[in-house]
Amino acid sequence: MTLYEQYRMHAQKAADLSAAQAMMNWDQETMMPAGAAIRRASQQATLAEFQHEYILNHIWPLVQELKGQDNLSAHQRLNVEQDYRDIAKRVRLPASFVAKLTEETARAQFAWEQARKANQFNRFESSLQQVIALKQEEADLVGYEASPYDALLDDYEPGATAAQLTTFFSGLRPELQAILTQVQAQPPRDYRWLGTTVPVDQQWDLTMTVLKDMGFRMEHGRQDRSSHPFTTSFGMEDVRLTTRLDPNDFTNALYSSIHEGGHGLYEQGLNPDEYGLPAAQACSLSIHESQSRLWENNIGRGLAFVEAYFPLMAQQMPQLIAGQSPVELFKALNQVQPSLIRTSADELTYHFHIQLRFELERDLIEGKLKVGELREAWNAKMKADLGLDVPSDNEGVLQDIHWSLGLFGYFPTYSLGSLYAAQFYAQVLKEHPQLLDQVRQRQFKVLLDWLTRKVFRAGKLTPAATLCQQISGEPLSVQYFLQYMKQKLSLVYGTYFH
Amino acid sequence: MTLYEQYRMHAQKAADLSAAQAMMNWDQETMMPAGAAIRRASQQATLAEFQHEYILNHIWPLVQELKGQDNLSAHQRLNVEQDYRDIAKRVRLPASFVAKLTEETARAQFAWEQARKANQFNRFESSLQQVIALKQEEADLVGYEASPYDALLDDYEPGATAAQLTTFFSGLRPELQAILTQVQAQPPRDYRWLGTTVPVDQQWDLTMTVLKDMGFRMEHGRQDRSSHPFTTSFGMEDVRLTTRLDPNDFTNALYSSIHEGGHGLYEQGLNPDEYGLPAAQACSLSIHESQSRLWENNIGRGLAFVEAYFPLMAQQMPQLIAGQSPVELFKALNQVQPSLIRTSADELTYHFHIQLRFELERDLIEGKLKVGELREAWNAKMKADLGLDVPSDNEGVLQDIHWSLGLFGYFPTYSLGSLYAAQFYAQVLKEHPQLLDQVRQRQFKVLLDWLTRKVFRAGKLTPAATLCQQISGEPLSVQYFLQYMKQKLSLVYGTYFH
Repeated sequence: MTLYEQYRMHAQKAADLSAAQAMMNWDQETMMPAGAAIRRASQQATLAEFQHEYILNHIWPLVQELKGQDNLSAHQRLNVEQDYRDIAKRVRLPASFVAKLTEETARAQFAWEQARKANQFNRFESSLQQVIALKQEEADLVGYEASPYDALLDDYEPGATAAQLTTFFSGLRPELQAILTQVQAQPPRDYRWLGTTVPVDQQWDLTMTVLKDMGFRMEHGRQDRSSHPFTTSFGMEDVRLTTRLDPNDFTNALYSSIHEGGHGLYEQGLNPDEYGLPAAQACSLSIHESQSRLWENNIGRGLAFVEAYFPLMAQQMPQLIAGQSPVELFKALNQVQPSLIRTSADELTYHFHIQLRFELERDLIEGKLKVGELREAWNAKMKADLGLDVPSDNEGVLQDIHWSLGLFGYFPTYSLGSLYAAQFYAQVLKEHPQLLDQVRQRQFKVLLDWLTRKVFRAGKLTPAATLCQQISGEPLSVQYFLQYMKQKLSLVYGTYFH
Repeated sequence: MTLYEQYRMHAQKAADLSAAQAMMNWDQETMMPAGAAIRRASQQATLAEFQHEYILNHIWPLVQELKGQDNLSAHQRLNVEQDYRDIAKRVRLPASFVAKLTEETARAQFAWEQARKANQFNRFESSLQQVIALKQEEADLVGYEASPYDALLDDYEPGATAAQLTTFFSGLRPELQAILTQVQAQPPRDYRWLGTTVPVDQQWDLTMTVLKDMGFRMEHGRQDRSSHPFTTSFGMEDVRLTTRLDPNDFTNALYSSIHEGGHGLYEQGLNPDEYGLPAAQACSLSIHESQSRLWENNIGRGLAFVEAYFPLMAQQMPQLIAGQSPVELFKALNQVQPSLIRTSADELTYHFHIQLRFELERDLIEGKLKVGELREAWNAKMKADLGLDVPSDNEGVLQDIHWSLGLFGYFPTYSLGSLYAAQFYAQVLKEHPQLLDQVRQRQFKVLLDWLTRKVFRAGKLTPAATLCQQISGEPLSVQYFLQYMKQKLSLVYGTYFH
């Protein structure tokens, strides 16, 4: 065995350990009996510790040695260099710290669930405080220049910083605000019929049909229910999606499934021959989000898609669709309306939700905001940005699972994902002008093939910024997203958005 | 940390790795998409290899050192000595062999499933041959005196041998044959109404009610569907049962659930404070089977149980129960009738199925029977023992999953389990003469508490033979089972069985 082959073998085994951890997480969210939470947390901690030690003891020495060798192919070199970058960061975290963080976040997740049951943020406070303290410790261990938040952000969006994002959101905010002002000048329309009760079994069937049409291979994955939709992978051949079913809001299930389906297609589309190596890992979280958002918003909430599925919906959920037209449904699905819950926010105001979270989590990690002040700060921002009072913690600070999992620095990638999605969407339409005709026929093969070629098979060998340049010929720009929003809203409101 | 505390900590981590493997297996049987089989097999191999190495590198040295120390409590010493015995056997198997066996059996399981779909044994032959070759290699590595089969048997029933079992079955066979002859002299009765179609949802509800009544804690476990019912555990707080639902045979689901529920109660009843140590492991497979069989047969197919659940069945499955009486249902459930499928065999002819498998697998492992001759040998024995022609492989040699999993030496523990069950059942009735009155009230607490005290909390610190002596004051005897069968069949057929 060459040194590179040894490295590859160990990387595959580390990926097998990742798969076991992913399965324990998936099971926890979908199947696990409640009484198993404590034991599960400690089992997850053990697996995380094993994996950490395995990477450090078996992969890290090989990667360091391979990095100096000049007999690697260009492709092999890219794998080695990416793993070198990733592991060099990891080396700074002792195994005991990783185990502690894993165990604490599993506990915090349980506390968050309990707090949601009680609809009381204070039941989550002490757990959250513990997690933040550990994430601050992590930032110190990893190191950073300007802000401890940068060290955490780098895990999801390599190279991005708090300062950059602060600037980015400052630029986007007035543009969004201008569009929102114009929307709010429109006469209100009544789309309450969208909340007609649809039995969850009918909703489920629709989501399964759409996922299969998108090209999600059910022989290499499955969909289940969970309280917060997510996607996880145990390898390209076993990708798990979850969705949330709400009898009084079928859009929740449909667009959760399409969103997670976008993530799932990315995971199923990674190169199985490179299992365990960076070449078979997702580029970055924002690129992952670009996939879910492109399918959910640019495609799924587009008029062509609504026209395509209207007959099926009329058949599967007649109680909702009776007397409506595709265009009316399209308008209903794309109404801009400030609201409390991020996951059901419209495409425009969604980004206010992200800014809010970004600013709060940045301040929490930088120690400028205390957990005891978080609830109030959240509610104040919701009032200032979107003019809304937060009537309960479940509709406010308790709505997202992320912080309980220790995912600080994750939220901004959602907004970046929308921007990448808009830019990629513009590009694929340029290259395939007939794409929307295909969507109208429930045909997504050309789109999926394009994404496979351009995005999935690039793996993690190309940084997000470079990938964007390769695909679209330009760096990331907010203009594609703003242009896409204005064009769509012009159609929705029947007035010119500028 | 004392040496014993270190040992205990490592044993807990090894148990966490076991839990991850158990979960991968459970998921494979209940949830996994078909296209993931190959990757899953290699992931399972990796985990088995990690665990093997972990035990050898971290637990084995401590156990060897602790074995020589005289400052342990009696209880601690029992844990250490049992692990010493178990690991000493394991040490003889190289990690690479364990990984190969795990991977090969995962593949063989998939081949078995495919062969069953095609109803063609020959599609499974080459995989089975591979597994047998590995099991023979395992026997050579572990070592044995008389037969390589002994080395495998010892994993499930420590100390038992092929020669002992051959003698045991020779003794049991004429007794069973005599009873069967007497049964076959009875006028036939028509119980085809037992095959009335019952929607699987109604069957499911009944199994869940019964499991909860038995004391299976749903906050520490769950039930799912699979093609072959099984029980697995990720710790005492997360025990997973599966059942099989057949619209035209509700007894399949009900008695599979009760059977697995008996296993599950054992797993939930192990001492959580000793997680990872022999004190919190099951005594032996035959003792595990004694639990499932005591619940399934001695309790579940008894008249008191049938009387207890008759009103509920009449309510939940009126299409089946209409016009019947508890006594008629009891008789229908206990008809002795030679049949092809082990898992649906009656309590008496069941043991012919086990003898058949025992003799075939013994001969396969000893090299006296070739895989190419197996199908014919199976069919010939079914004809000789039970007078039945085997019309298809799925009803013959392909019916059990065990051999695909490499479980050679496992089948005999089913018969031993029935004997232990009968002996324990006689004992608990002696100590609690009111037990059947409680069963008639769907009250199982006294029984469960008795089993917890006598069996579950004994863990693996007491050998099966000693446990039997402790509980019943005698060594294992076939007389309790024969007496129990004769008594039941006297009631069923209304004639004296002698």
